[in-house]
Amino acid sequence: VSATVLYMSVSLDGFIAGPNAGPGNGLGDGGERLHEWLQLRRADLGSGVPGRPAGVNGQLFDEFMATGAVVAGRGTFEPAGGWGGDHHNGVPIWVLSRQPPGIDVSQWPLVSYANDVKRAMTDAKRAAGEKNVLVHGAATAQLALAAGLLDELELHVIPVLLGQGRRMFDNLGPAHIALQRTRMIEGEDGVTHMHYRVAR
Amino acid sequence: VSATVLYMSVSLDGFIAGPNAGPGNGLGDGGERLHEWLQLRRADLGSGVPGRPAGVNGQLFDEFMATGAVVAGRGTFEPAGGWGGDHHNGVPIWVLSRQPPGIDVSQWPLVSYANDVKRAMTDAKRAAGEKNVLVHGAATAQLALAAGLLDELELHVIPVLLGQGRRMFDNLGPAHIALQRTRMIEGEDGVTHMHYRVAR
Repeated sequence: VSATVLYMSVSLDGFIAGPNAGPGNGLGDGGERLHEWLQLRRADLGSGVPGRPAGVNGQLFDEFMATGAVVAGRGTFEPAGGWGGDHHNGVPIWVLSRQPPGIDVSQWPLVSYANDVKRAMTDAKRAAGEKNVLVHGAATAQLALAAGLLDELELHVIPVLLGQGRRMFDNLGPAHIALQRTRMIEGEDGVTHMHYRVAR
Repeated sequence: VSATVLYMSVSLDGFIAGPNAGPGNGLGDGGERLHEWLQLRRADLGSGVPGRPAGVNGQLFDEFMATGAVVAGRGTFEPAGGWGGDHHNGVPIWVLSRQPPGIDVSQWPLVSYANDVKRAMTDAKRAAGEKNVLVHGAATAQLALAAGLLDELELHVIPVLLGQGRRMFDNLGPAHIALQRTRMIEGEDGVTHMHYRVAR
């Protein structure tokens, strides 16, 4: 069955970007450390397509590149240059935003801006068919979790304490969200891939 | 070689206590979820000694109960009733606090209050001899990390998003702290035991 799956690289202390993240600095100061396992450096952000790592880490890369649609936040999509309009394999991309596009997307038929998380997730799931939906971005994940629209989480835990930055989990309510651990993989370079299903 | 090792139960979203933690509510609202694997309930806090779980989780319990000294924050020690003056096996306990004791410790010869993290960690390490030092509490861990006095971290990651509460990692500076993943254990009840060494 198709699932909406959050894929995020996160420091052990829970940050997905360094401090001062924003336009022109999408990973935040020092945030490229979190993406070294994908061979994604700050200089690559414009082109946007991460590299496939070797070994077990490559298996995870293959997994999220096999998804059938993408739902990402504007804060993820735009600093990455919109992935040139195609994240992978021509699958459709929904960009969650309450504002009009901050970059020119008029030539990118795969890209839709949406301001409603439920609508975006529903449309993406339908478009993905039998495949999973790749969910990306902290704000998007928080909205999807709060709305009960996120099915699974895959966190790539990087062996570093960033100390400061943008947190993966923030702004949630006090209600507990129970999880089931479904898979744990010790990847190369100390990266641990933790997979959970949201219990409902 | 003896090491200072932080042992903490933490939700996947990085909380070590629920919201509104404080005197009389040491685990915070709903925070007992994080300690179920230790069979430690809110009602047990006064007596303070957690129970030994079965299976792999018990192995971790044995490990931290084999330490030769304890360094804990006042916010951990006092709501737990000071563990009755003896956390385990009569090992000495240093309580980090900038204030005088908030509970009567005059009959507890194992307990020393200290306001300097370096002094407390040094004294604890000497007292522990060949054994490790059990470090406990978020504020204490943050001070020890910032001062370069923490050698290892063992996080018991609980499969739940607490949403709100007291964070394990907070108030650190922007300097990255590199870690080496040294052990990963899939415990019972979805608890994942993640062990890291601080790289220096």
